[in-house]
Amino acid sequence: MKFVIQKQAFIIQLNHVTRAIPSKATIPILQGIKITATNEGITLIGSDADISIESFLPVDNESYDLSIEEEGSIVLPARLFNDIIKKLPKDEVVIESDDFYHATITSGSATFNINGQDSESYPRLPDIEIDQQINLPPLLFKQMVDQTVFATSNQESRPVLTGIHLTANASSITAAATDSHRLSLREIPTDLPNGEDSFKPITIPKKTMVELTRMIDDNGKLAFAVTEQQVIFFLENLTIFSRLLEGNYPDVYRLIPSSHQTELVLNANNFLQAIDRASLMSHESKNNVVQLEIGEDNVELSVKGNQVGHVAEEIDYKKAEGDAIIISFNPDYMKDALKSFGDVDIKIQFQSSIRPLLMSQDLEDEVPHSQLLQLLTPIRTHHS
Amino acid sequence: MKFVIQKQAFIIQLNHVTRAIPSKATIPILQGIKITATNEGITLIGSDADISIESFLPVDNESYDLSIEEEGSIVLPARLFNDIIKKLPKDEVVIESDDFYHATITSGSATFNINGQDSESYPRLPDIEIDQQINLPPLLFKQMVDQTVFATSNQESRPVLTGIHLTANASSITAAATDSHRLSLREIPTDLPNGEDSFKPITIPKKTMVELTRMIDDNGKLAFAVTEQQVIFFLENLTIFSRLLEGNYPDVYRLIPSSHQTELVLNANNFLQAIDRASLMSHESKNNVVQLEIGEDNVELSVKGNQVGHVAEEIDYKKAEGDAIIISFNPDYMKDALKSFGDVDIKIQFQSSIRPLLMSQDLEDEVPHSQLLQLLTPIRTHHS
Repeated sequence: MKFVIQKQAFIIQLNHVTRAIPSKATIPILQGIKITATNEGITLIGSDADISIESFLPVDNESYDLSIEEEGSIVLPARLFNDIIKKLPKDEVVIESDDFYHATITSGSATFNINGQDSESYPRLPDIEIDQQINLPPLLFKQMVDQTVFATSNQESRPVLTGIHLTANASSITAAATDSHRLSLREIPTDLPNGEDSFKPITIPKKTMVELTRMIDDNGKLAFAVTEQQVIFFLENLTIFSRLLEGNYPDVYRLIPSSHQTELVLNANNFLQAIDRASLMSHESKNNVVQLEIGEDNVELSVKGNQVGHVAEEIDYKKAEGDAIIISFNPDYMKDALKSFGDVDIKIQFQSSIRPLLMSQDLEDEVPHSQLLQLLTPIRTHHS
Repeated sequence: MKFVIQKQAFIIQLNHVTRAIPSKATIPILQGIKITATNEGITLIGSDADISIESFLPVDNESYDLSIEEEGSIVLPARLFNDIIKKLPKDEVVIESDDFYHATITSGSATFNINGQDSESYPRLPDIEIDQQINLPPLLFKQMVDQTVFATSNQESRPVLTGIHLTANASSITAAATDSHRLSLREIPTDLPNGEDSFKPITIPKKTMVELTRMIDDNGKLAFAVTEQQVIFFLENLTIFSRLLEGNYPDVYRLIPSSHQTELVLNANNFLQAIDRASLMSHESKNNVVQLEIGEDNVELSVKGNQVGHVAEEIDYKKAEGDAIIISFNPDYMKDALKSFGDVDIKIQFQSSIRPLLMSQDLEDEVPHSQLLQLLTPIRTHHS
């Protein structure tokens, strides 16, 4: 194998592929990056047990200034190879390997020789026939992941809750995430080839979603396909294979309350800052709880006395309707939920101090299929 | 105690003082910040066993917009107090304490109540009569610390080597640091009131020097005074007290070689980058060693074969004079030394492959009393 390539454009693709590569792998060859040169271009593959990322660098893409001098392939230690390429002295890099899996990397007057492995020992990516790719709007998809991923569970006791659950509707996709204390739901409009039959509901590991959003080009291609055991995302010149999480995802829609006793309208960002302040005191307690009291004509946020002290703040609001209520919750969960809305007005609907509260944007005219809902279970205290 | 102050200017001083405050202190009250209000202004004190920092905020400094409504003092939990002040909603902050060591912090509609401690229980700073402060050039002093501090030892077995050693000369100060593998020496010109008798040689803990450089204003005041057991630095409105390290500092000047067999002149920054590249391979070995070979008409840097691979690079140089030599050294130590020079030409002088190499700037006309020397002991390999 021998090829010549431009350093900067090569580094971008190396960075994408090494996202999948674990620093410590139980299967040693997975700490490597597989490099294959054909007359059409270079293919880079990185993988752990769960995610595989493949990048194709075509000879006809000028940014790589790629010339293939000899076809072939090799597996090289990924972290070291990446570090070497980044620190090479010149823009032009020559990469060459011999029949003994020795690679030579030359740039300017520097020559690295590193020992690689036979690419035949590298696990093969599944060879799947894809009938149809489903296009996704890149920017909205990233937003959808950002607005839900924090609510996924970190506990491996119920693996299916550690992922984001995607469902096809007639002309939209909905993402759900819940750790059973809170629920995030976001719908985005999408052209689906067969409406709600376009794909069966799937649960994708959190890590896949996070790494994916880091690779998505806002103005580039984004599509996906679902197979029996995998989801495959297609970006401009990247293909991301991920396993799916098994298990029945809970029916989250039935958790959404259909009525409320109290409604509060306020600016999400101002409320976030007040919660952030109050949480300084709740973090000093064993039970990390803040209390919100909606009274006749004021709204107060407080953390009751602990050994360090206490805090109270009157909250600015746009509208408060319905019954007076005192409700307590985890401020860190509330901060996550508020951040997902940004600097807009939201309405918070309360049923009672022991039932989940529901947050949504306060809009005159809703954008169809764009709803964001955050549900948060309160904490029962002796006040409740 | 009660006073009103502007948040932003207050935060800057809080940040300075909390530099000294440990997150976990064996003496619990040292996790606090001591706040004293008098009609002249506010004094903030933070301390650990080794460093104490005092900041004075005078009423006549407009940036604080300070008004003292009641004199008094209190000790408050430093980290929490700092976090609260930073997150307050308005610029104006009211801080008040009662006779039971309860403090109230009010800003806008937020009110924090935190429990403090009696300021009488806080250790007193030494009340020292200072005859004379010795002025220092702020920018050069910071440079001097940056160019030497990395060579201090991290090993507590010889505590005096964990500090920077300062010596007074006729019209300059010299800083020395050594971990016994390398030595950094930097001289800066300074007006000394009594020449080399201005102060006896002292060794200041690394932490003091590092924290100090972060507080120094390049255009502000910088002076110091030495007492029997302490050094005190005076900045615009800050006073930093530090213990001195005990023990005899080695006579480092006798380590500087007076002759050489080989001299190499090259750009420090280019050489740094080559060392950085080569170190990628040496880091893969147990013994982290790179080899420099100065031959008849080329200079080569290399890392010999290890299980991962090897690297060789021809080095650009301006001048090479004297005997051919092969010498090996720790690339990370060499990187530290090279960084201290910046992007300038340096000369490296070699006596033999087992004697220390000496680095200095390659200048036509030296700036008096501004010399920077870096000495590095080579590593003996089977090539030596």
